[in-house]
Amino acid sequence: MGPITAVYEISGPDPAPRAGLVAVEQSHELPTELAPANAVRDSLGHVRTVIERPGKPALATVDYPADLAGGELGQLLVLLLGNVSLQDGVRLVDVTLPPLLAGALAGPRLGIAGIRALTGAPEGALLATALKPVGMTVEQLATLAHEVAAGGLHVVKEDQGLANQPWAPFAERVPRLAEAVRRGNPHSVYLPVVNGSAARFAEQVEFARGAGAHGVLVMPGIAGFGALAHAAEIFPGGIVLAHPSFLGGFTATASHGIAPDVLFGTLLRLAGADATIFPSWGGRFSLSREQCLAIADAARRPLHGLAPALPTPGGGMSIARAPELLAAYGPDTLFLVGGDLRRGNDPRGAAERLVAAASAAQPAERS
Amino acid sequence: MGPITAVYEISGPDPAPRAGLVAVEQSHELPTELAPANAVRDSLGHVRTVIERPGKPALATVDYPADLAGGELGQLLVLLLGNVSLQDGVRLVDVTLPPLLAGALAGPRLGIAGIRALTGAPEGALLATALKPVGMTVEQLATLAHEVAAGGLHVVKEDQGLANQPWAPFAERVPRLAEAVRRGNPHSVYLPVVNGSAARFAEQVEFARGAGAHGVLVMPGIAGFGALAHAAEIFPGGIVLAHPSFLGGFTATASHGIAPDVLFGTLLRLAGADATIFPSWGGRFSLSREQCLAIADAARRPLHGLAPALPTPGGGMSIARAPELLAAYGPDTLFLVGGDLRRGNDPRGAAERLVAAASAAQPAERS
Repeated sequence: MGPITAVYEISGPDPAPRAGLVAVEQSHELPTELAPANAVRDSLGHVRTVIERPGKPALATVDYPADLAGGELGQLLVLLLGNVSLQDGVRLVDVTLPPLLAGALAGPRLGIAGIRALTGAPEGALLATALKPVGMTVEQLATLAHEVAAGGLHVVKEDQGLANQPWAPFAERVPRLAEAVRRGNPHSVYLPVVNGSAARFAEQVEFARGAGAHGVLVMPGIAGFGALAHAAEIFPGGIVLAHPSFLGGFTATASHGIAPDVLFGTLLRLAGADATIFPSWGGRFSLSREQCLAIADAARRPLHGLAPALPTPGGGMSIARAPELLAAYGPDTLFLVGGDLRRGNDPRGAAERLVAAASAAQPAERS
Repeated sequence: MGPITAVYEISGPDPAPRAGLVAVEQSHELPTELAPANAVRDSLGHVRTVIERPGKPALATVDYPADLAGGELGQLLVLLLGNVSLQDGVRLVDVTLPPLLAGALAGPRLGIAGIRALTGAPEGALLATALKPVGMTVEQLATLAHEVAAGGLHVVKEDQGLANQPWAPFAERVPRLAEAVRRGNPHSVYLPVVNGSAARFAEQVEFARGAGAHGVLVMPGIAGFGALAHAAEIFPGGIVLAHPSFLGGFTATASHGIAPDVLFGTLLRLAGADATIFPSWGGRFSLSREQCLAIADAARRPLHGLAPALPTPGGGMSIARAPELLAAYGPDTLFLVGGDLRRGNDPRGAAERLVAAASAAQPAERS
């Protein structure tokens, strides 16, 4: 089995020796001269190349023996960035896995094709909204859910801010919203949020399944990356939608953390996200157009036979921007429009306008 | 119940309106004029003050209705930083909870007193090492574990790099190392690493318990913050030691994320860590002395009746620095020394020297 290869951007002076320290930190975390010879031979990371680039961070490529991941996604993350996540000036920008390891990880169970099958939408852009704000009653949320489903949205998801608060408790809310969406549109899917309490996570996923939801919204930054695959295991045929809440620490600056396409595209797809939400350009967040399109590509491109994940841009999208965004992202995208559907207090009409705008837009063929 | 109060550092221009956007993003994530009146009344965050400081980021204090956390740690994290974690220029630097909410969260089950009871060390500094590197065989690891326990270390923990790799598989390794530590020193405790595979996490914790371990090492950045409390629930009387792997995205730069004392002190303590590892100053990582002492204070200070957590500085510590570090941190600290115990290929002798150095040092009384 070939190595796990990680590429890091290294900012600041002396990138070559620092790349060597990264390779040691992420594998042995012990000076090489103090490690037993068999471990040095079998399990030490090696710097393959360091390319210095004027005015830009150096690119360091490190090969790790594939066995270091132990066939597990969690340990792969520890290996790729665990301790060096604590250092400024080191940023993970690319990952290549040996096919056998990629195949051993979960990957999306449904992926784009599965979501299209569930929503009865074999082609064209897919459209979603979030039920919010927290503080609405079950009755208010159910009315909203019904209206946006009736307006033709494919996916009705809960906001990550809904948990188990007194205004709309989970056990009361989920069956009511599932029913409201079903009445609104038999092709719409409803995805409640399941939050991070480890002991209750599986219970909540199973409750959602029993209550007629079509999958769940999971926050790997809170519940852990393994929670995505776990949700898929206990909700066969259900959509697992990943939300970036509490993951942004990795992408907020350019000098540390993880490149957004690697985090929201590759890593969450490997972890089992059928669809992956990220903040698109032009909204309230700071990712660039280029970074967003790279996320979409990483979610969809061939990856050792794993199903493609559905890129789900959100965060300040609007009906007016549908043509621009559809042209840029292409139709294999779930467009998440929030507040803009609430203007004029006619969510059903707004959903219909969004559906019409997406249908009218001619997506450019992507190269 | 009073509010949940978060203090953010806001870098860059226009901090007052940006604080307002943070309060809305983290609660309603919807322009206020589009939200129902009852939600605006009940569940919207409010900026209490914004203090501009010349040459430093502004300090914005935001009050959130306590019910937004739903009584759950995971949702508290979503509330405090979920979406704004994606933004540079916003950093969480303080959190105050209403006592009722703090009491509803897990907090340490054992805390400092429980760890002292388990290790038979009612006073004085506590000492630990990590078993590494990955790639060592079970036999090699068992010998090392035995020697450092016999040398008098209180805590023998596994490196976060050990998972379930072929060189020392989990199920074979854990019983052997538990026995080796017990033979080496009946007062030493052994903490194996349980990694982030959600479906197998509980199984691994229970296996560790059955195999004679005294607790577990958990990486909340991988397994999720809820995994700390979950581990404590299924391992009654066991130590839960939190490792910062894959959490550093939040602390790597000063312009985003979470202040280290809030993350590694307050939040991990609330989540249930009995002891919390962080990279100390003067080693391989970049936290300052002031930041490290603030972490230790946050772990130990009175917090609504929750047990204090044991600060566990690591990352390049040494026997020679024991007097300096003990004087700075005080004795209610678990000092984690790795590579320095391996020099000279006599880990037992090195452990004995560390014990002697710590005993000889007169810790300064801390104010």
